[in-house]
Parts: sequence; C-alpha cells; structure tokens
Amino acid sequence: MSEINGNILIGATEERGQATFQGRNPATGESLPGAFAEAGVEHASAACALAAEAFPVFSTLSPADRAAFLESVAEHILGIGDALIIRAMEESGLPRARLEGERGRTVGQLRLFASVLRQGDWLEATIDPAMPDRAPLPRPDIRRVNQPVGPVVVFGASNFPLAFSVAGGDTASAFAAGCPVVVKGHPAHPGTGELVARAIQAAVAASGLPAGTFSYLPGTTQALGAALVADPRVKAVGFTGSRAGGLALVEIARNRPEPIPVYAEMSSINPVLLLPTAAAKRGADLGAAFIQSLTMGAGQFCTNPGLVVALEGADTEAFIAAAAQSLTSAPAQVMLSEGIWRNYCSGIDLLAGNERVTLVARGQAGEEANRGQAALFRTDADAFLADPTLSHEVFGSSSLVIVCRDVAEVKRVLAGLEGQLTSTLLMDPEDQALAGELLPLLTEKSGRVLANGWPTGVEVCHAMVHGGPFPATSDVRTTSVGTLAMVRFLRPVCYQNIPDALLPPALQAANPWGLTRRVNGTLTPA
Amino acid sequence: MSEINGNILIGATEERGQATFQGRNPATGESLPGAFAEAGVEHASAACALAAEAFPVFSTLSPADRAAFLESVAEHILGIGDALIIRAMEESGLPRARLEGERGRTVGQLRLFASVLRQGDWLEATIDPAMPDRAPLPRPDIRRVNQPVGPVVVFGASNFPLAFSVAGGDTASAFAAGCPVVVKGHPAHPGTGELVARAIQAAVAASGLPAGTFSYLPGTTQALGAALVADPRVKAVGFTGSRAGGLALVEIARNRPEPIPVYAEMSSINPVLLLPTAAAKRGADLGAAFIQSLTMGAGQFCTNPGLVVALEGADTEAFIAAAAQSLTSAPAQVMLSEGIWRNYCSGIDLLAGNERVTLVARGQAGEEANRGQAALFRTDADAFLADPTLSHEVFGSSSLVIVCRDVAEVKRVLAGLEGQLTSTLLMDPEDQALAGELLPLLTEKSGRVLANGWPTGVEVCHAMVHGGPFPATSDVRTTSVGTLAMVRFLRPVCYQNIPDALLPPALQAANPWGLTRRVNGTLTPA
Repeated sequence: MSEINGNILIGATEERGQATFQGRNPATGESLPGAFAEAGVEHASAACALAAEAFPVFSTLSPADRAAFLESVAEHILGIGDALIIRAMEESGLPRARLEGERGRTVGQLRLFASVLRQGDWLEATIDPAMPDRAPLPRPDIRRVNQPVGPVVVFGASNFPLAFSVAGGDTASAFAAGCPVVVKGHPAHPGTGELVARAIQAAVAASGLPAGTFSYLPGTTQALGAALVADPRVKAVGFTGSRAGGLALVEIARNRPEPIPVYAEMSSINPVLLLPTAAAKRGADLGAAFIQSLTMGAGQFCTNPGLVVALEGADTEAFIAAAAQSLTSAPAQVMLSEGIWRNYCSGIDLLAGNERVTLVARGQAGEEANRGQAALFRTDADAFLADPTLSHEVFGSSSLVIVCRDVAEVKRVLAGLEGQLTSTLLMDPEDQALAGELLPLLTEKSGRVLANGWPTGVEVCHAMVHGGPFPATSDVRTTSVGTLAMVRFLRPVCYQNIPDALLPPALQAANPWGLTRRVNGTLTPA
Repeated sequence: MSEINGNILIGATEERGQATFQGRNPATGESLPGAFAEAGVEHASAACALAAEAFPVFSTLSPADRAAFLESVAEHILGIGDALIIRAMEESGLPRARLEGERGRTVGQLRLFASVLRQGDWLEATIDPAMPDRAPLPRPDIRRVNQPVGPVVVFGASNFPLAFSVAGGDTASAFAAGCPVVVKGHPAHPGTGELVARAIQAAVAASGLPAGTFSYLPGTTQALGAALVADPRVKAVGFTGSRAGGLALVEIARNRPEPIPVYAEMSSINPVLLLPTAAAKRGADLGAAFIQSLTMGAGQFCTNPGLVVALEGADTEAFIAAAAQSLTSAPAQVMLSEGIWRNYCSGIDLLAGNERVTLVARGQAGEEANRGQAALFRTDADAFLADPTLSHEVFGSSSLVIVCRDVAEVKRVLAGLEGQLTSTLLMDPEDQALAGELLPLLTEKSGRVLANGWPTGVEVCHAMVHGGPFPATSDVRTTSVGTLAMVRFLRPVCYQNIPDALLPPALQAANPWGLTRRVNGTLTPA
C-alpha cells in the first residue's frame, strides 16, 4: 500500500521542490533509491497556512473524536507493514528487533494519549461559580479550561526514526492537545518519514479532518526549519536533537514579533553514581552491566550514561576493570549517519587527546563505513572541574569515569554539572544514607533520578519526565516523553459570565463530556 | 511596631548602600521622609546566595508548614495596622478604600494559597507502579511529583503597591511553590514595600525558617534588577510592569549560561466588543458604565478597557455620546508617579496628534501635580489597522473606539490585535450567534474572555487566568493571578525505583500527606 515518491505533503496535496536529495544507508555508505524533494520556504508557508485553517476544527473536536484520530494514526502506521521496518533499517542501520520495538512504542504512545484524552482530566476544567450575594462585591461566574496553543512544528530526531520522529512523542502530544502539526522531516530517514507521514495523511482523511491537520516537509536546508519556526501562524515547536540545533531554533523563536516556545530536548551526559557498598558488593557485575547500557544502540540515546562518578579504591577499580573487559569485546556498531559518526569520532579524539584523561578501553574497531568503536575514559575530579569540555556530550558509546577522592569531591562534581535528563544511583541498602545526602543535588540537576537501573530505558507512562534543567531541555517544566508531554501544547483560557451555550463543552453546566471538574477548588466527579 | 529606616533587608540582616533615594507623594509632588538605601549588585549577590542556602529547607517543608508560613505572612501584614495604609496612600496617591481593599486581597490570596497547599493536588503526585512480569521488559516503579524550581526574583508593580508588590501574587505563589524569594522593591512605594518586607521577615523568623527565605532590596537602578536576573542561583523571575521593562528582563534571562523563565505580565489594551442588540437596547447605559471602568483608579489597571470595537450606526453613537458625557464630568485623578503621569500625557498627545483619530471627550483637568485627565478617542477600522501605534497601551484612563462598517471589519480588527489579558463582549441574548462567531478569535487572542462585565475586576480564585498571548505576558501558558499562578514555579521530577525511604513524602507508599494521587493514570484518593 505504501509507496515512496519523495513528494512534499502539504495537507492532502503533493508537491515537488526545485531540488532533491537522497537517503543513505549508513551501513554501506551508499545512497538509497528515491529522490526526495527539498521543501522550500514557500512550502513551509503553505503548510502553516493550511494548519491555521485546520485549527478551528481540529482544536474543537471532542476528546473522543481526537482519541479516535490518534488510534487511526496508530492503525495506519501498523498498516504500512514490514515495508516500514525494512526502510527504517536501511536508513538508520538499526536492527530489526529494535525498530519493531520502536514501532510498538510509537503506536503505544498514540494509544496512551487517546486514553488520556477520553479520561479528560487534561482539560483541567475548573469552575468558580458566581456568588451574587458576596459583599462588598459579588463574584462573577469564572471558568477555566485548557485549550490548544495553535499550529505546532515538529523536528524529529535521527536516533528514533519512529518514536521521536514524524509520528513520535512530539507529534502525538501536539495532536492530543488539539494542535495541527507540520513536521520537518529528518533528512537521515526520509523514506521512513514519508511512509509514516502518508499514514498520518490517510488517518486525517479517514477521520474526515481538515487536510491542514498535518503536513510533512522533507528537506535538508536550515532555511526550511528557520521558515517554519518564524512563521507567525506557528505557536510552538517541538525539537529533539543537538544543543547547537536546538539553540538555533530557540533563537529564531525568540526574535519573532510574537516569541513562541521551542521545546528542545538537547544535551545530557546522564551521570551514574557508583556508591561504595554497591561497588564493593557487585562492582564487577555493575561494570559489565554498565557497558550493556553504554553500547546499546551504538550509544545513540539521549540518556546514554556518558559519565560515571565513583570513589577511589579497589572496588571502583574492579568496576572499571570489568567494564574495560566487557567493552573490549563489544562489537563495532553502525551509527545513524556519517555526520553522527564523524562527530562521535571527533568527540572521542578530543577526550583521547586530553592529557588529563586516560583511555581505559576501546571496543572492537569496525572495518566498514560509519562504525562506532566504543570508548571508556577516566579522569579525576580536579581535571573534570577544571575543563568544561569534559562535560560535553559525545553522542554515541563514550563514557568518562571520574574517580573522586571523597564524598566532598563527588558533591563538587555534581554541583558543577549542567542540567541533565537523568541521574542514576547504583546503591546497596547500606548506601542509603549517602544516597539521601546526594539526592537533593541530583534532583536539582535532573528530570529523572533512578536507582539500580540504567537510564537508557525511557518508559512511556504518566509519571515519566524526560526533561530537565538546561541544557537537557529548553524548559525545565516540561517532558517530551509520557502523557505530561501534552501540557506543552496547552494554555489555560478563562471565561467570565459567558452564556452557557457559548462555553466550551468542558465547562457547560450539563457537563456533556462527563468530566471530573474542580469546583470551588475541589475535584468533583461528574 | 513597624518602623521604616530604608535599609536593605538581606535575610535577617540589615544593610545600607552607598547612595539613597526618597519616596515621593504623587499627590503633592513632594518628597516623603525617609532615605532608602540603593541596593547594589553586591547586595543582590548576597541575597541570592542566602536564598540558595535556604532552598533545601524551605523547599522540603510539609505543605502544612508552608501553609502556616503563608498565613503568618498574612497576619504580620495585618499586624502593621493603619501605618501601612497611610504610607501606601502617601506613596501611591490611591484612596484609602482602595488600599484597604487591596490589603484584603493581598492577605486573602496568601490564605487561598495556604488552603491550596494543604489540599495537596498541586503536587500532582503520580505513580506508575512496577510491572515486574511485563513482557518483553518489566516496567520499573516510576513516580513523579512537582518540586519548586529554586530561588525566585520578584519585581513588584507600581499600580498595586500591596497586591502585586512585595507580598503580592508573584511572591505568594513562589512561596507556595516552595521557592525562596528575593524582591526588588519598586521605587514608587519604598516605604510601603519596606513595611511589608519587614512583615515577611518577621514571619520567616516566627516560623523558624532559614533567613534567606526572603530578602528585600530597595533600589532605583537598572543594574540592581539586571544583577538579580543574571544571578546563577536564581531560577525564575516574576514581573509585572511595562513592555519595555519586561522585555529587558527577558533578554537578560535568555543570555545567561543557563537561561531561565521571566514571567512578565506586560501590555494589554483589553478590547471591549459592543454587539448590536446590546448597543441598541442599552447603549447609553453601557457608555456610562464603560467610563466607570475606564476611570477607576485613574485607569491604572493592566485590564483597563483601552479599546472599544463597535459597529457604525445610531446605537454606537448613543454609546459614545453617553460615554463622552460621563467622561466630561470625570474628575482628574492623581496618578501613581510623575513618570507614569508623563508617559500617560505622551500617549494621549500621540493619539490627539494622529490625524486619523478624533478626540471624543476629555475628563476634568487637574490643577495639582500628576493629575491624569481622562480621554476618549475614536477612529475607523482602516485607520486602526494601518497604524500599529494605535494599538499601543496608554497606561491610564485612555480609550479608543473603533467604529467598524460591518462584522467583517470587526473580525479584521480582532485578527490584527496582539495578545491580550482580556476581551469583553457586551451582548444581549439576541447577540449570541454573533458572539459565538467572534469567540474563537477572542479566545485565541486573550487569557480571559468575559461577557457583560468590565475587565478591571480580577478575581483571585482557582479558575482565574490573568495571562494571555504575547505581549500580554511572556508565557501564554501561565497566569499571575489565582491559584494556577504557582505552577510557574514548579517543575516535575521523576523517580525510578528509588527506595521508599528516600522518596519525597508525596510519593511514599504510606502516603503520609494523605494525597489524592494519580495511580496508573487514575486519580486515587488516599
């Protein structure tokens, strides 16, 4: 059913640009079939205009109708069948099992948002009824409900060609909120992107929604992204990618006549703290498990453990030795693109060339194109604190162990860190007092704190926070994974003494959507 | 009990700066007794350091303890007695009844936040329990709770020397969230500010809280404000004031190594739509009532009705005529400061000098210092749409009536507006269809839409949104009035497999705070 022709999808229509580009198979370095149109600023403008046109309809759908649309998107993605997995494998170098899992995650999060929509609490319907007899002044009837902000632009990530791309978390949460979406396709997986985009396009049509609810613009130029963020009809932006890329978009959004938020998930080295008893009792096991997390998916996760903080001594040495042994046999893995591989190599070279950093071990070297050769380094706290480049993210399987003389040094290292998506405590029950001492610092620095696990798994659920202080994200109050992600695209609107028939259904006296509403401050079931 | 000595209050200590300034009585133009220290950048740094020191304790108080502190602040403000009202009258030119009402509002909102704290829903405690048997991968235990962002800097407004100043909405909501607060005192009411600051200082001491929970820095320099916003320990800023002032702070906050949010409530002209049947049936009454709202408090409200949009014809003329008549007898009123009065006069001059704008009426001229002489102007839609200066806020009693030829022109005028705090519909039941047609546009443009009232009353309650799209505020997802204001100073933090004893109480298995928590997506009472 799904054919790729490389067209620009503006609502229900297809267009060609003036130039084209091709996908590449990172495993072979060769170009893949198919010429993808370079969308230009005129296409950006057309897509945004259509999104603004769709907004009045899409934003006022009932939660049930919007939920059905999300489920239809999920069905249409599944309907692509194996062609999606095959194309994604070719474009990303990721293995089948990983991509099948990622498809499940993509479809699962669309369905999870559908269930949240139906449940209705996300509307935060709040009613402070009139008090006509209040002295000295009567109180008017005041009601509040969450409404979508307007059209949203989504920049997908390269490292999750399904779950963080065209129909990924940003798109799913923006749709859930009621915002039409314009996706700027990631040039590393243009065919995968188009397949998913056509699935969304089909779901829009099947659901009888305005065509402008979704558009898909393939392209490789910065001008395209800049035009989308600058478009006056766009009210928010979702982005997952590099710090430089995210900050460039933030800058464009700031300088608009009407500044808008860019929710950028950017940079994190995800410190892992090895506490003494855990090191003593299972240092070697933890070292081996650490390498599993570090090398998973060629280390191409936002939550890859790029930093280990440990106390000097034999137990930490055992951890490092086990990690080194495990790493040495880790096979080279194909990385997502030549650009990512080159950046990874540069990052490794920088660490390797730093005279205060010691190479602990490398993984297997690859003989083919774009193979990442994992690397583990070590240094001490003074060196780390003195050199900000040591805390820069190296995207890929690279990690740095900071061996600290004492807990005070551990705290100094933590206090010196920038914001993080995650922090991890490897701890045994005997470490609990120390963990409690460090926890406030970890909480201050990160969106998620975990114990005795690895940060690379990010659960899609209600309690997840995949966010954190700058530069992990551009807005510490938000998450890009989990159901809370949708609040990024909602704004509260207040109605005072508005006639019942004109109120949004969520606020009407009859409560037609059967919502639990906050009345005079108290949650009140329908 | 309350003496004013003009000192800088850094936690529990008092300091003098190198220079001083004096308060002024705008009603007489004369200086008031008391020399107020100019806080400098070194005082800003000391206050922020102390706030950061207080954060670990203040941020982890139980909701009940923090509620008791807010109530203690309210008690201490009341404890100042009439000295507070008298000094505020002298410094602001506002009448006694207004300031007594404002004190009630200030105390009331502190108590409202206390009740919200005790109720606990603001924590959004969310638990997705572990699923050890889930295939293919078990789910870890994941919990989320809202936590305060860190120390907050508050810039009070001149126009509400109590309710939007030292212990106003920003301070109350930041305290409620668990954030220590450093207030940059407004130089238009330094004595009032100090009295309230000393009340907060006393409440901090009486509650046994760390002294750095609150500091108060009087001063007139931009360097002081800039140093506070740039301080790395500060994590958010609350501001109410001019567009230029707000944007200057936003710019400083953006350029920090770690950018932080500035919640700036800035500029709004609050369109009022006069619909045809309302105009026909009660145009003259509405015209007179409009002037009541326009001239209240010398027009010095963020929600002052600075724009009326009406359809051409005899009914609108009757509205304008009644407004003109009412305005002509409106007495001159003392404005908050000489600077505000000068800006107001400039704004009026600009409108009066615009050849496409007609003066409808002026209020009474004042003979004493700083008296605002109210003004009403009219123009047509073409002129309004052609000249962006006509939509600039004139802070004070000034309004512009746009007489439109038809509904299409009304829509063009509305579509051309920047973001607003409020929009108002003056409507009769027969106007409902038209109101329904305009409502989506009004909702898109404003944080609060009201019918058959005036925007100048802003209720402090759960459903209030005193916010709106840029430039009404710098963040459309927020409000600076009402209980929702506190979410500006909260961030979600996620805990994964953290031992129960280390979890924040809100997330512990025993639920010691008795919270309603979201478990697997469903709200679950304790």
